[in-house]
Amino acid sequence: MKQTTNTFTPASLDDSRITGGFWAEWQRTNREVTIPYVLDKCDETGRTQSLRLEWKQGAAWEPHQFYDSDLAKALEAAAYSLHQHPDPALKARVDSYIELFARAQQPDGYLNTYYSQTGIEKRWTNLRDMHELYCAGHLFEAAVAHFEATGERSLLDVAVRFADHIDERFGPADADSPAGGKKAPGYPGHEEIELALVKLAHATDEQRYARLAKFFVDERGREPHYYRTEADRRGEPVEKRRWEHADLPAPFAYFQAHKPVREQEAAEGHSVRACYLYAGMADVAKETADATLLAACRTLFDNIADRRMYITGGIGSHAHGERFTVDYDLPNEAAYAETCAAISLVFFASRMVNAELDGRYADVMERALYNGVLCGLSRSGDRFFYANPLSYHPTAPLLHHVRSDAERQPWYGCACCPPNIARLLASLPSYVYSTSDDTVAVHLYADSRLELDIDGTRGALVQSTTYPWDGEMTFTCESDGPMTFTLALRIPGWADGYELSTPDSSKAELTRGYLSFRRTWLPGDTVRLSLPMPVRRTHANTAVRDNGWQVALERGPIVYCVEEIDNGAELADLALPADAQLDSTFDAAMLGGCTVVKAAAVRHDSSPRAPLYGGPGDRRSVGLTAVPFALRANRGVGEMRVWIAEV
Amino acid sequence: MKQTTNTFTPASLDDSRITGGFWAEWQRTNREVTIPYVLDKCDETGRTQSLRLEWKQGAAWEPHQFYDSDLAKALEAAAYSLHQHPDPALKARVDSYIELFARAQQPDGYLNTYYSQTGIEKRWTNLRDMHELYCAGHLFEAAVAHFEATGERSLLDVAVRFADHIDERFGPADADSPAGGKKAPGYPGHEEIELALVKLAHATDEQRYARLAKFFVDERGREPHYYRTEADRRGEPVEKRRWEHADLPAPFAYFQAHKPVREQEAAEGHSVRACYLYAGMADVAKETADATLLAACRTLFDNIADRRMYITGGIGSHAHGERFTVDYDLPNEAAYAETCAAISLVFFASRMVNAELDGRYADVMERALYNGVLCGLSRSGDRFFYANPLSYHPTAPLLHHVRSDAERQPWYGCACCPPNIARLLASLPSYVYSTSDDTVAVHLYADSRLELDIDGTRGALVQSTTYPWDGEMTFTCESDGPMTFTLALRIPGWADGYELSTPDSSKAELTRGYLSFRRTWLPGDTVRLSLPMPVRRTHANTAVRDNGWQVALERGPIVYCVEEIDNGAELADLALPADAQLDSTFDAAMLGGCTVVKAAAVRHDSSPRAPLYGGPGDRRSVGLTAVPFALRANRGVGEMRVWIAEV
Repeated sequence: MKQTTNTFTPASLDDSRITGGFWAEWQRTNREVTIPYVLDKCDETGRTQSLRLEWKQGAAWEPHQFYDSDLAKALEAAAYSLHQHPDPALKARVDSYIELFARAQQPDGYLNTYYSQTGIEKRWTNLRDMHELYCAGHLFEAAVAHFEATGERSLLDVAVRFADHIDERFGPADADSPAGGKKAPGYPGHEEIELALVKLAHATDEQRYARLAKFFVDERGREPHYYRTEADRRGEPVEKRRWEHADLPAPFAYFQAHKPVREQEAAEGHSVRACYLYAGMADVAKETADATLLAACRTLFDNIADRRMYITGGIGSHAHGERFTVDYDLPNEAAYAETCAAISLVFFASRMVNAELDGRYADVMERALYNGVLCGLSRSGDRFFYANPLSYHPTAPLLHHVRSDAERQPWYGCACCPPNIARLLASLPSYVYSTSDDTVAVHLYADSRLELDIDGTRGALVQSTTYPWDGEMTFTCESDGPMTFTLALRIPGWADGYELSTPDSSKAELTRGYLSFRRTWLPGDTVRLSLPMPVRRTHANTAVRDNGWQVALERGPIVYCVEEIDNGAELADLALPADAQLDSTFDAAMLGGCTVVKAAAVRHDSSPRAPLYGGPGDRRSVGLTAVPFALRANRGVGEMRVWIAEV
Repeated sequence: MKQTTNTFTPASLDDSRITGGFWAEWQRTNREVTIPYVLDKCDETGRTQSLRLEWKQGAAWEPHQFYDSDLAKALEAAAYSLHQHPDPALKARVDSYIELFARAQQPDGYLNTYYSQTGIEKRWTNLRDMHELYCAGHLFEAAVAHFEATGERSLLDVAVRFADHIDERFGPADADSPAGGKKAPGYPGHEEIELALVKLAHATDEQRYARLAKFFVDERGREPHYYRTEADRRGEPVEKRRWEHADLPAPFAYFQAHKPVREQEAAEGHSVRACYLYAGMADVAKETADATLLAACRTLFDNIADRRMYITGGIGSHAHGERFTVDYDLPNEAAYAETCAAISLVFFASRMVNAELDGRYADVMERALYNGVLCGLSRSGDRFFYANPLSYHPTAPLLHHVRSDAERQPWYGCACCPPNIARLLASLPSYVYSTSDDTVAVHLYADSRLELDIDGTRGALVQSTTYPWDGEMTFTCESDGPMTFTLALRIPGWADGYELSTPDSSKAELTRGYLSFRRTWLPGDTVRLSLPMPVRRTHANTAVRDNGWQVALERGPIVYCVEEIDNGAELADLALPADAQLDSTFDAAMLGGCTVVKAAAVRHDSSPRAPLYGGPGDRRSVGLTAVPFALRANRGVGEMRVWIAEV
């Protein structure tokens, strides 16, 4: 068996493909609805106009410091889609945006349409707030995706020119540096470019970009503090930012820049920025075999997974600053849990599981993906949640400065989430499998196919399942001849046991959440994995003060919720007896097809004229119907709860 | 038996006096600590300086539009105290402030030190925001209290001059009015003057002031809207006020001016303003025998008591705007429940019970008094809560824009609560008894003495009890000869039965919460009332989404809470079994002496390393100790909960 400490490489979209079932349907919706819809919205809202540099004073739209990133993410999504589903019309549309990006690029390689239109002389003067490096990162990711999808360098060349411009400007200031001490310090206020530079380094085989990523990571939070220097240079008080609250643990914690990254022990500040940074740190750690950096990633991951994450994989509980707060502070109704934050956690967790094969990371990745991420998108594919609270009451958002919406919205002024979910869905096959030498790791279960090339023998591993609605997976080897490789199958943390059947009763070993066995596969060999999937009652750590004596229902990777449409209003009064049987049935007619959980529950008799305070009221038996949290609010507005009283 | 529909008059401080026990101790603290402390603070914080008109540009303090009211309320408290506890030093101090008020008065009777120092030409241009009429009201209340305490007219004359000034300026604009159509419309943005004018009318026997009160009440919310007219006149957009949110039911609802008061059916907007207005409406209704106005009061009271009031009698759940929200929206941790709001509810409820003897009103008055009001003051008498949440966790106020403090504070920039609680405590005997012809109504139980004069026979009713720690009350008649009168004893809504014993087995009738019997009392006659006082489990209406499957403990009028100091942290995990016995013992050493509730409860085993999400954990038996909510946070900072999980 292979040592699982080897690092793994995510399967490319050339090799891995989702072929049916749950995710194939979401990918189809993404391809047919979400991606063109997001591009249309960019066209309608000034983003494309900004890329055309069409802004004039008095226009209906204003250039914005991160408009470029919305289009870049949409192009990245489209590129992944084109990679697996050629579509000449979409490709032509993508090419037209690429032409605009190329035209918008300055002669020196700089590219940011906000500064191009509002005053290029101010560029690079405010790395903390102005998102230039963030937009660059998204452009690099789009360029790499486009290059890998098409083999064309049209966007990659733009990216390379911009990356070279950045690399010439930022870097070690010491005289021994390649630029002879001429480079400037600095690092982005919104991280993202770090992981993008590593992608660009791989796509172009140019290690300078990875070194620049490492520079941005290493510089972060060092003294003298760059954001102070920079603010001084602008003649601004450093405390100008309204979300730099006294309750953040230290100045610049909002930006994860309160201390050098290797000294950071808790996930702080804006949660999307945080996990983009941590993902970039994991990339740099892998690239440079930096154990201290990987250890920092591990510490930060543990802090999130053990203390700062909703059961949905949502992170960043606090709307004000879109940020982490303190350990175990996970209010349900007030939860922010931005869709992008759950996506960023998928990025981080995926990198960690590929850095050190451990189901702990994949468990979090799967949790976020099926719940906190997917909740962001309507079944129809064209409506989006930004915040994903775990409890919703119609009076809550209006009255208590909770930022949750009653329904998924057509668009947001800050539209980071819609293209982000589109690019994740389109690239999902890369999260299903990863490989290391001749080991294939299976992180997610889905009808899918992974092309293999083992020592020159070509074949494919075909996975067949109706996961997440049941836990029966079949893996078949398609090849022209025998192939010897190790298969590492993730046994989810939620699974209470498993059954594996192989043609030859291969001896399998369960190590850190992965069941591995090495065998010689003959064409048509089939391996079956069965994960029992009862409905589970999950309880929160007693330190989570919003979840006392409440229970959440989970089945497989799916977190459930109760909605008013199925259970009536006043959901706080709906309680699940501790001994109630939990039944689950796949209901093809419910929400496009999903497994529904039902149980006998209790409520109190109530009426509008019941006293405000009095006796407990008589209990009555009622039915409880729970549906996947991610599918909530697809049937109108109403109350919703993930955590239910348990009596 | 007397018809209880007669209106009652609160006992004066000449006649009613608290002689011992629970409230006597709080009155002593108020007299010895709180009143002088509040005056000292007024001296230290610019309030007294403002009254001296000492402000100059660059001073350490700024004149403020309601500074005058803080001093007026403090003087009112001092006057009540002097009424029953002569204190030459305090009287001299009071006289010195009165001299300042007199000196600060303009020749035309106007008195507001904010405008006197910042530009008198702007007076009366912004009734909505600038608190001139509110400050006037508090001055009138202080003046009446001082006149009744001392018989001196020094402050009353100032009040009368100011009231005359206001009466000359504001009133019906029609030509038939006494001023021949020359008066201006308008009414205060912060109500208070209405009830004060009725007091002033009584003290001076001048019905003009009551008519002016009626004018302010009747004008409110009429179209064309005065606040629009006034804003237009100032050249300001009417929507300037930041707390005029879209989620208020209508423009000007913050000020209870969204429609004429007789059409208002729900308590809206700033809760202190609301109940000051409603109290004033009840006063005007009584003064003018206005049944429609009284009916409006009844409707508004019911809306509060049945749908918008915390179990503590706290009202105004929302910190932003210090206001009512919607029915059953009563979050515990985020509760604002300002001390002044509970005080204003006492004012309103007291007037309603005197308008139509009904225990429903007195129940609310008692609930607010013992819980939501008293929580505002430390046992030491010199620390104050402004907000009184029903659940406190150390991370809550810092992180979630909850305005609660960890500990009672020495003072507030907006210092309305400290003098407000002082004046209520000092005038408490007027809330214990009221009379109507020869009926004596007893609303509150306390060691006390009420002087009587029935058809020329003088005597006293002496009440002896250790209430609220037990429910045994003895009423003894002290007189020189027989006295025939009806005694109406409140049977609290919380009491499950009662026992009455009279020397002659008088036939008593229980009508709307009052047990009335008419008899001829001989000197020394004693009547005993016994109210059983077990610990009660109280549940909230199922529509209150924060209290699902939780229980509050009450005993007599006291609402209990659990505190971290007695029960450990993670109070959300502390649960009371539905069948647990609840024991209560008076503990002389606890919090200066109080009845403590103890029960066997359960918790889960927990440790900092327990998983964030997992199984329920083992239950363990623990002891639960609950103390009166009003006495919380007198032993350091820690978690607190009123509503406890019930399993």
